[in-house]
Amino acid sequence: MDISAPTRVRIEPAFLDALTRRFGEQCHTSQGIRDQHGASESHFAPMPPDAVVFAQSTGDVVDLVNLCRDHRVPIVPYGAGTSIEGNALAVRGGVAINLSRMDAILAVNVEDFDCTVQAGCRREELNLHLRDQGLFFPIDPGANATIGGMASTRASGTNAVRYGTMREAVLSLTVVTPQGQVVRTARRARKSAAGYDLTRLYVGSEGTLGIVTEVTLRLHPIPEQISSAVCPFDTLQGAVDTVVQAIQLGVPLARVEILDAMQIRAVNRWSKLTLTETTTLFFEFHGSATGVTEQIETVEAVAAGNGGGTFAWSHLTEERNRLWKARHEAYYAAVNLRPGAVGWSTDVCVPISRLPNCIVETQADLASASVPATILGHVGDGNFHVIFSIDPTAPHEFAEVAELNRRLVERALAMDGTCTGEHGIGLGKQDWLVAELGDAVDVMRTLKRALDPDNLFNPGKIFAL
Amino acid sequence: MDISAPTRVRIEPAFLDALTRRFGEQCHTSQGIRDQHGASESHFAPMPPDAVVFAQSTGDVVDLVNLCRDHRVPIVPYGAGTSIEGNALAVRGGVAINLSRMDAILAVNVEDFDCTVQAGCRREELNLHLRDQGLFFPIDPGANATIGGMASTRASGTNAVRYGTMREAVLSLTVVTPQGQVVRTARRARKSAAGYDLTRLYVGSEGTLGIVTEVTLRLHPIPEQISSAVCPFDTLQGAVDTVVQAIQLGVPLARVEILDAMQIRAVNRWSKLTLTETTTLFFEFHGSATGVTEQIETVEAVAAGNGGGTFAWSHLTEERNRLWKARHEAYYAAVNLRPGAVGWSTDVCVPISRLPNCIVETQADLASASVPATILGHVGDGNFHVIFSIDPTAPHEFAEVAELNRRLVERALAMDGTCTGEHGIGLGKQDWLVAELGDAVDVMRTLKRALDPDNLFNPGKIFAL
Repeated sequence: MDISAPTRVRIEPAFLDALTRRFGEQCHTSQGIRDQHGASESHFAPMPPDAVVFAQSTGDVVDLVNLCRDHRVPIVPYGAGTSIEGNALAVRGGVAINLSRMDAILAVNVEDFDCTVQAGCRREELNLHLRDQGLFFPIDPGANATIGGMASTRASGTNAVRYGTMREAVLSLTVVTPQGQVVRTARRARKSAAGYDLTRLYVGSEGTLGIVTEVTLRLHPIPEQISSAVCPFDTLQGAVDTVVQAIQLGVPLARVEILDAMQIRAVNRWSKLTLTETTTLFFEFHGSATGVTEQIETVEAVAAGNGGGTFAWSHLTEERNRLWKARHEAYYAAVNLRPGAVGWSTDVCVPISRLPNCIVETQADLASASVPATILGHVGDGNFHVIFSIDPTAPHEFAEVAELNRRLVERALAMDGTCTGEHGIGLGKQDWLVAELGDAVDVMRTLKRALDPDNLFNPGKIFAL
Repeated sequence: MDISAPTRVRIEPAFLDALTRRFGEQCHTSQGIRDQHGASESHFAPMPPDAVVFAQSTGDVVDLVNLCRDHRVPIVPYGAGTSIEGNALAVRGGVAINLSRMDAILAVNVEDFDCTVQAGCRREELNLHLRDQGLFFPIDPGANATIGGMASTRASGTNAVRYGTMREAVLSLTVVTPQGQVVRTARRARKSAAGYDLTRLYVGSEGTLGIVTEVTLRLHPIPEQISSAVCPFDTLQGAVDTVVQAIQLGVPLARVEILDAMQIRAVNRWSKLTLTETTTLFFEFHGSATGVTEQIETVEAVAAGNGGGTFAWSHLTEERNRLWKARHEAYYAAVNLRPGAVGWSTDVCVPISRLPNCIVETQADLASASVPATILGHVGDGNFHVIFSIDPTAPHEFAEVAELNRRLVERALAMDGTCTGEHGIGLGKQDWLVAELGDAVDVMRTLKRALDPDNLFNPGKIFAL
């Protein structure tokens, strides 16, 4: 797969004319805006679209899809641009459809613990809106991504150990198909056995099968008590064992994040903290006051038996937010270990029993790397990230990181893990998707060809056809 | 849709010869075994297959699929035969593939909280096997169904409010495709963003896209404390409000079942209990000893404020099992309100805020029915069943029940609900699938045609092509 020299589609002036006629000032072809939509937060070369359309309604999306289909022009959905496997880059050119102006919260059904939002709504804004109603939306990938983007990449993040991922959080989607049909994938009932699970088919399909315009989400009551803590560990094995044992004891951990010594160093520097620079767990507990106290007692006892140090507690919202803000900025902290560096973030997920081995072997492999690399992860899920800080003017560093990444993914696959726990396949993990799932990828290709026969929806992502 | 006179495929003697040659004593064409596989637990007319093959390995399934494809013969997967929308009936004849002999538990990974079983393994046997390891598999549709069948119909049941449905419980599947390929849909990692979610596509597809031969399941630690209780209510609204308020207060209810007065009468008679014959909630609480005590205090207080009576508690395993055995036999109890009757069980699921209205209106509609009908449901999910007890010699009763069922489903759809929460579409809900999801059903048909172009896998189910 040579993604460095993709074949860009030739755009006819007649198409651009039609686009401008229909979309007027919603349509942009200036270099600046095209470049902005052709860049990513990660290490991929820029791949700008030929035009950018800011959609304001599902009707806009339908019209754009029909125009693009008539002219055989690729169409790439774009939300907040925070994905990190090149998921929204215009490999073959065409039109980027920016959904960020479709950010309305259409309905909140407090008694049903659900809401419906437009795809461009961002998760932080949604949670601000929900707060006064005693509800929250737990899926938290770090970045303030759009809900549509999170659905399309099957995002998860720090709360997934307790609340699941976008796979569990999405009740229903409104999707525009490559044929320009608007379909709603499910009703608002919490469960259904009515036919094929189209909701889950579109969740994680990275815009290659349809464009998500509305999302109905499951919500959760804000817990009575939320407490966070940080605990340093002598060894990585001790940290992971603590988590496994706590889960076995039935502790409903809400968040449990692992940061290695290098990542703690980066966080200390970036967020002005003074944590001990060793393997550390960040915990969050949700429940009733009594329940949280009980969870804490159990976890402290388990940690003490596994070489854990003293727990530093934050029961107050402000302290807690400071801690999690530092965790959320871990990516930027890691990249900025070197001034002017670009980031390359990769992720794998393995059965939790294999996590200590997987991380220890990865640390050993990173020890001799010539670029800084940090490890942080969602221990309860067996999912972790490696973030590399690369000198953009040094091609050999990219080659070295590519090789480290290859070994990481192959290590995870050998442990019955996946090449990506939450970033998606995008451009970066295509070869390993086949290594991971073999003939199942043939089934995926069959689905893609059936639903998008002209290969116009985010072409070149997940797999080349 | 006329399912009463389906077109049966003509089976050539050459095919039966080839079948016998390959499968020997695993292949049966006797009337008795064909009739057994052509009957269902519900009200559908018998639709026997032309032959039954007892598979003993994934290799057997592959060979049968290839034989059937070469001869254009339909193939219908069969587990425990406990589905109730006609999901496993041989509408067009062909071969029923009975997977019940593929019942091995292939692996239990205690530390990873997962296991892998063959499709024919039954849920009760799995839980017996897991018990000593401190783990359990929570999905509980009542009947002792096979895991493969439960995956294929997206089963859920009494524990879904806390632990989710088969959608959440299945980590990975081994599936034989209509092309005879064996695909594994995912690795054993708890989450993945690697391509399309084939696991969820096959879960609930009722054997129309592939035949499930192995299932990897998420497991849960057996809670330290389990307590059950029964509470009678003055009104249905009071019972449902109790559940909604408890969930809003963050009580992690493990089970909460509603039974109407008629269902309680049936249960009393069938299971020799002496419950007050009024709307009743069956609860189960899971957690630490302290946690369960706290949950109980909260729920008792909420119930008291909503017209709930005294809670009758079962903290002991034996009492608890007696209670839940009665709940699990509710279907047989309801059908046997009349001697010699046949059952017709239907289910819908609505947003929980609409549940009181939906049940009250349904009760009013049932009040004038000439056949006994009971209501029971999974309140926390908004899902409930109506079970009719029909005289098999009285065609007008079938017609009356069909009409009551139509009104029930249309009531649920009008409330943004689904025509089936957990039974599946099978033969019984096909028209309403279209009423519920509109153009989305076109997308489903496209998927079916792409994956099973000859329409040989459980043809005539979910939709006629």
